[in-house]
Amino acid sequence: MATFEFESMIIYYEDHGQGEPLLILNGIFMSCLSWQAFVPAFSSHNRLLMVDLIDQGMSTKVDYEYTQDLQERLVLAFLDHLELDKTSICGISYGGEIAIRVAGRHPQRVNKLVLANTTAYTSAWLREMGHSWEYAMASHDGHQFFKTCIPVVYSPDFYESHQEWAAHREELFVRAFTPEIYDGFARLTRSAETHDERGNLARIAAQTLVISSQWDFVTPLPNQSELVAGIVGAAHLIIQDCGHAAMYEKPVEFTSAVLGFINSPTSEILID
Amino acid sequence: MATFEFESMIIYYEDHGQGEPLLILNGIFMSCLSWQAFVPAFSSHNRLLMVDLIDQGMSTKVDYEYTQDLQERLVLAFLDHLELDKTSICGISYGGEIAIRVAGRHPQRVNKLVLANTTAYTSAWLREMGHSWEYAMASHDGHQFFKTCIPVVYSPDFYESHQEWAAHREELFVRAFTPEIYDGFARLTRSAETHDERGNLARIAAQTLVISSQWDFVTPLPNQSELVAGIVGAAHLIIQDCGHAAMYEKPVEFTSAVLGFINSPTSEILID
Amino acid sequence: MATFEFESMIIYYEDHGQGEPLLILNGIFMSCLSWQAFVPAFSSHNRLLMVDLIDQGMSTKVDYEYTQDLQERLVLAFLDHLELDKTSICGISYGGEIAIRVAGRHPQRVNKLVLANTTAYTSAWLREMGHSWEYAMASHDGHQFFKTCIPVVYSPDFYESHQEWAAHREELFVRAFTPEIYDGFARLTRSAETHDERGNLARIAAQTLVISSQWDFVTPLPNQSELVAGIVGAAHLIIQDCGHAAMYEKPVEFTSAVLGFINSPTSEILID
Amino acid sequence: MATFEFESMIIYYEDHGQGEPLLILNGIFMSCLSWQAFVPAFSSHNRLLMVDLIDQGMSTKVDYEYTQDLQERLVLAFLDHLELDKTSICGISYGGEIAIRVAGRHPQRVNKLVLANTTAYTSAWLREMGHSWEYAMASHDGHQFFKTCIPVVYSPDFYESHQEWAAHREELFVRAFTPEIYDGFARLTRSAETHDERGNLARIAAQTLVISSQWDFVTPLPNQSELVAGIVGAAHLIIQDCGHAAMYEKPVEFTSAVLGFINSPTSEILID
Repeated sequence: MATFEFESMIIYYEDHGQGEPLLILNGIFMSCLSWQAFVPAFSSHNRLLMVDLIDQGMSTKVDYEYTQDLQERLVLAFLDHLELDKTSICGISYGGEIAIRVAGRHPQRVNKLVLANTTAYTSAWLREMGHSWEYAMASHDGHQFFKTCIPVVYSPDFYESHQEWAAHREELFVRAFTPEIYDGFARLTRSAETHDERGNLARIAAQTLVISSQWDFVTPLPNQSELVAGIVGAAHLIIQDCGHAAMYEKPVEFTSAVLGFINSPTSEILID
Repeated sequence: MATFEFESMIIYYEDHGQGEPLLILNGIFMSCLSWQAFVPAFSSHNRLLMVDLIDQGMSTKVDYEYTQDLQERLVLAFLDHLELDKTSICGISYGGEIAIRVAGRHPQRVNKLVLANTTAYTSAWLREMGHSWEYAMASHDGHQFFKTCIPVVYSPDFYESHQEWAAHREELFVRAFTPEIYDGFARLTRSAETHDERGNLARIAAQTLVISSQWDFVTPLPNQSELVAGIVGAAHLIIQDCGHAAMYEKPVEFTSAVLGFINSPTSEILID
Repeated sequence: MATFEFESMIIYYEDHGQGEPLLILNGIFMSCLSWQAFVPAFSSHNRLLMVDLIDQGMSTKVDYEYTQDLQERLVLAFLDHLELDKTSICGISYGGEIAIRVAGRHPQRVNKLVLANTTAYTSAWLREMGHSWEYAMASHDGHQFFKTCIPVVYSPDFYESHQEWAAHREELFVRAFTPEIYDGFARLTRSAETHDERGNLARIAAQTLVISSQWDFVTPLPNQSELVAGIVGAAHLIIQDCGHAAMYEKPVEFTSAVLGFINSPTSEILID
Repeated sequence: MATFEFESMIIYYEDHGQGEPLLILNGIFMSCLSWQAFVPAFSSHNRLLMVDLIDQGMSTKVDYEYTQDLQERLVLAFLDHLELDKTSICGISYGGEIAIRVAGRHPQRVNKLVLANTTAYTSAWLREMGHSWEYAMASHDGHQFFKTCIPVVYSPDFYESHQEWAAHREELFVRAFTPEIYDGFARLTRSAETHDERGNLARIAAQTLVISSQWDFVTPLPNQSELVAGIVGAAHLIIQDCGHAAMYEKPVEFTSAVLGFINSPTSEILID
């Protein structure tokens, strides 16, 4: 419920509660608004920071192409704006990719790191999925966008048992989404096309938790294992019967894993 | 390399080798041509029968909508044409759906049954995937079609390590596919939209093998388990590190499983 | 570091820190001592309660056979002794079985419930494993006990990479364990032989988290899925690359999951 | 139903049917007798060769310790005795370990290779399981042997649903097994203790299929993946809902996979 200026753009953010700071970085189709139901839990022991990345939610939608280093600079500027030397970060999907950049390239700025449904690089396969999304976004047709981009982020079982909810969301998207929003999604998607931080994973100094979903069809389990293998000492939890959008499908598991990891002094546990 | 007439349509089929007959039923984007590399192995101990379903390959492309019972009637007519009382059937994806119809509704016509990467019903989630495919097909744009419909049928690892092959196929599709072909694909996709044979699985009398892939993102493992649970005595093999198009990604595993099941007198093995 | 009397037995317990109470119930080969490294984390936001069950650690070793209802009564008496109406419980393996009894038969006494590497019933297969353990325990031979009962609770990869640690523990057990201890283990094992709370799972009112391990070879994943399916609204997290003794193999994941679940107001998260 | 002499020992073998030869190598607790139900299927297209390894079934039980190179020499002598330059081999567990030795050290003698529920090396964890088995074998007590060594080779679900069968087998073992048999099992177990052919996997020239079981608690899936990764071009099939003794639990899947792989000209399938 505040903004700051970054490289002539207006960046929207929220700042809730008190305690060790925890910054949330959103997936492509998300914004601060997506976290409304989570704010009480996430701010119960922490200062919860959320930000709409460039081309997301209420932040500026730009008129040029960029790559993810722009979002990385934005995150650093946001921390500077808040006069925070360090914060814990929880990144989801695209937000996890930005979180990897920040943690690997600026390790002194990150306390603990959670990477949920994130990949260390955009594989050829994921790039093609992005291309299919771009076709749908370019149509500016809400139904084509929804059918192409949304069901794939859920597990089939969840989707089957939430059809009314899904239909409601489709109508909502069709009504609410403007060409500007679709074009923003497309720029976000293209900005991730060259994402490849595999070479920087070993530079991450933050204690890290990777959260994966059994039925993640966007950043599937082999991507998750690669990520865990690349980050020294990374912990790994799998959410069963769950798709890419873990926070929506399994909010209890997601919240427990994130907050338990962020708020427990686990680094002190030494077995014998 | 022959045709027969079915309800005023011309149906293309192939008939190779000798032995117990084995009929292959194709997935949506496939045709008899897709099996060229497999013909020597599949006809080494069997009479291999392949057929282009309606709207596939060299069979008639129609100008009306239909449901899968039309393809079911076609299969029965094909067996009648060949004067075969019974055949073993191996159905892949869409072809597996037709195979379920034939085996569940006409159990006396099926000897052994292999269902590879098949689901017993089109879930709400799969229906949406079909809708995203229809948008891409309706564009008649080969690149949009390819990006939307093809990578998802492969595992990310396979796609990553076969990028040149994939690019070559994309060019091939762009050059070779006409609006008629895309419209045929769309009708095939729509004909599967109401597929739900869950209530008929228990009527399948044929000894059945379900072949699944670990990274099948079209008919994922929970669909496979449901299928196995519904068919009395069904055997189940999983191909690791493999996507929906198992026959292309793992031809050795696929061929071994199909031919071993079809040609071994396994029903006689009684353990104590 | 205190005791209380229960049915003429002396029960050892520990009481650390402040906050919402969290009671730990041990696996068969464990005692309060097993949790030493975890005390700082587990008592950082909670009043951590630990108890040596009958025949464990520093509690009385009895001279008669019993079933798990005795341990259930002990837990209730412990809560009464502390004048606690309610507590959250985290039960591990055997301790999870007792936790199921308490939560299913006395739902008003349990706040939140964590069941780690627990099964709802002792299957015929697990009963046989118990029998093999009893043979080893009856030998009073520390090496035979260790070889038969200990490696199976770890994942092969963990054991392979902790051989020196394992050898050290074997020597420790051989030196420290007396016939009385082995006989206690055997009575604990036998007391679980008739465990079957499947019929009471639906009576559990506590918000529940099931924690499972990918390579749990004592209470394997199918047991875990049954447990999750039986408890209304149970959450489920899987620890990858981990055996039955999850707390030892993956202390960060284990601690994050338990404390995040216990301390986050997750029940309030309602997605749309 | 024949014997030959090898290094002053009498080796029992069976030779059924005609066609491409397929040699079966047994797991520790198995013998030619174990395959009785499989003979019709396995000899339907092949010359089926089975042999009781040293200390197995009706072959000589020795009075000295040995390592697996003795069994390797036996296999080569058996092929020489039959005047076979080459054979396909299907090795199960211990027999798979011998098969790896033969295929890696004498690649010219092996046509196709199937390794079912086999590991490339005896891990520290598996060695301890072997030690627990040795304790049970040394007791010469049939019940202790059965409880310790047999349930673990089955999946919990199979064991739960075959309790009468299991009880019958236990009685059979108790009646039939003599001290000589238990001592033979113990020598076989010890001969595998130093098994480590990881360095020779790359020398295997035979086209190879690895068959694994989802719930194999003796040679678990990570061992299987290592094996597949080490053998150039190895194919891999997983049998779901199945324990270590795949041939008994899932005879249809096992038989289909083995015979389909052995008898299909799969090496000729080249996809584009």
